[in-house]
Amino acid sequence: MQKISDELRREKKTIGFVPTMGYIHEGHLSLIDVSNRNSDITVASIFVNPTQFGAGEDYREYPRDIEMDKMLLKKRRCSFLFYPDVDAMYSKYFKTEVYVKDLSRFLCGIRRKTHFKGVTTVVAKLFNIVKPDIAVFGQKDAQQAIIIKRMVEDLNYNTKVIIAPIIREKDGLAMSSRNVYLAKGERKDATVIYNSLKETEHMIENGVRNVSIIVRRIREMISSKKSARIDYIKAVETKDLKPVNEIKGEVLIAVACYFGKARFIDNIIVKV
Amino acid sequence: MQKISDELRREKKTIGFVPTMGYIHEGHLSLIDVSNRNSDITVASIFVNPTQFGAGEDYREYPRDIEMDKMLLKKRRCSFLFYPDVDAMYSKYFKTEVYVKDLSRFLCGIRRKTHFKGVTTVVAKLFNIVKPDIAVFGQKDAQQAIIIKRMVEDLNYNTKVIIAPIIREKDGLAMSSRNVYLAKGERKDATVIYNSLKETEHMIENGVRNVSIIVRRIREMISSKKSARIDYIKAVETKDLKPVNEIKGEVLIAVACYFGKARFIDNIIVKV
Repeated sequence: MQKISDELRREKKTIGFVPTMGYIHEGHLSLIDVSNRNSDITVASIFVNPTQFGAGEDYREYPRDIEMDKMLLKKRRCSFLFYPDVDAMYSKYFKTEVYVKDLSRFLCGIRRKTHFKGVTTVVAKLFNIVKPDIAVFGQKDAQQAIIIKRMVEDLNYNTKVIIAPIIREKDGLAMSSRNVYLAKGERKDATVIYNSLKETEHMIENGVRNVSIIVRRIREMISSKKSARIDYIKAVETKDLKPVNEIKGEVLIAVACYFGKARFIDNIIVKV
Repeated sequence: MQKISDELRREKKTIGFVPTMGYIHEGHLSLIDVSNRNSDITVASIFVNPTQFGAGEDYREYPRDIEMDKMLLKKRRCSFLFYPDVDAMYSKYFKTEVYVKDLSRFLCGIRRKTHFKGVTTVVAKLFNIVKPDIAVFGQKDAQQAIIIKRMVEDLNYNTKVIIAPIIREKDGLAMSSRNVYLAKGERKDATVIYNSLKETEHMIENGVRNVSIIVRRIREMISSKKSARIDYIKAVETKDLKPVNEIKGEVLIAVACYFGKARFIDNIIVKV
């Protein structure tokens, strides 16, 4: 991959990069489109990165379908797929970690203590392998997007990070490889996440500014679904993820909750 | 610097890199020579990196002479000097750290707890800025060399790390920018470090294999000097810095000690 990237750069081709864990859906493919619009060549990676899964999380069960993925990526004009195996990425001597302080502790970092360290370390590796001019990540992983941007700036990666909007199913559920985990009843219940975020938008349009009122309403709506178990509902500053008490300027409203054993996240950004 | 490096790479020039903290001496210049022999273009950096100095260490006093440095580097056919200021390297939003576990805790890491984290973070930054094909470090900082090699392999930097031998004054003292700290009597006493390491070599040539006997002899010799205060004397495996009890295979014998307020390190590798 490094040889290919060096050769492309020598030919003055710009490289767009979309790192994924595979089980490609329309959300991933929208990132490929963004990459193609912003670079000459798009490289995707598929790597279910063990170090970003915690104990008891779904590393083993994480859905995989490489043949389908290849087909979908090719059809969407992704030129290269980097698809390493775990031993190639982590030798038995492996000892290095890349960590973005503070930002990795909030929100998902509370329950998933080592998750973002796993993400930033593997993304640093992938950037050194693919050497992209631009890299495209999804807004669904809002905290990840902020952390990656911070890392790229701090470590002087010569890579422009583009965050692309959330792609949703017709009923509003954010697309995720993990949606296949949902049993039929859970799948229906799960639409409440986006519905509660839309309700938030209406409340804010109608003048509500108090975050506890907003959070309470989201909690009410999600709790009304039998199969739902809330992890967090938070309103934070979009730049540093610091909690806010009042909707003012640009605010990220982020939700994480379980349906069955699987954990789902979603978010909206509101501006007043 | 990134634009220059991209352009050089496009021209198929290979880039050699010698990162330094300046106050250039013959040790640094020998690294420039190694770089020139192994690449088309040599880039040096001068950056006294605040994050690798601990509280109470000599960040402020660290000797600096940029005009002399420029002259010496130019004369030795170093083509580019990257010489950033602290604010350009660390914005007020800076939050990222690169850390090599385990290896950073031993030897110098015991007294200088955050030192190697500072080193690996700034070297990761410099590699992303200079994009070198090869990078040359000195064997004097033996532990740093091992840690950097680990980081480069773990994070998939496309950079070959070359470790160049220690350059010494006529009386054997390892060259170091910090040697200017030594008062006249201390300067004379400091030769005991290398003399004790040479003595070790003789002992091993004469069949001594027991590390405690060797360490005791080094301790005796250094302690005989009034101005010396020992930090550590260790015999460790060259690959993972694990302590050894017996000289067998390749062993790094490393010494750190103070003369006055300043700290000096030196080492030899023995093979039996």
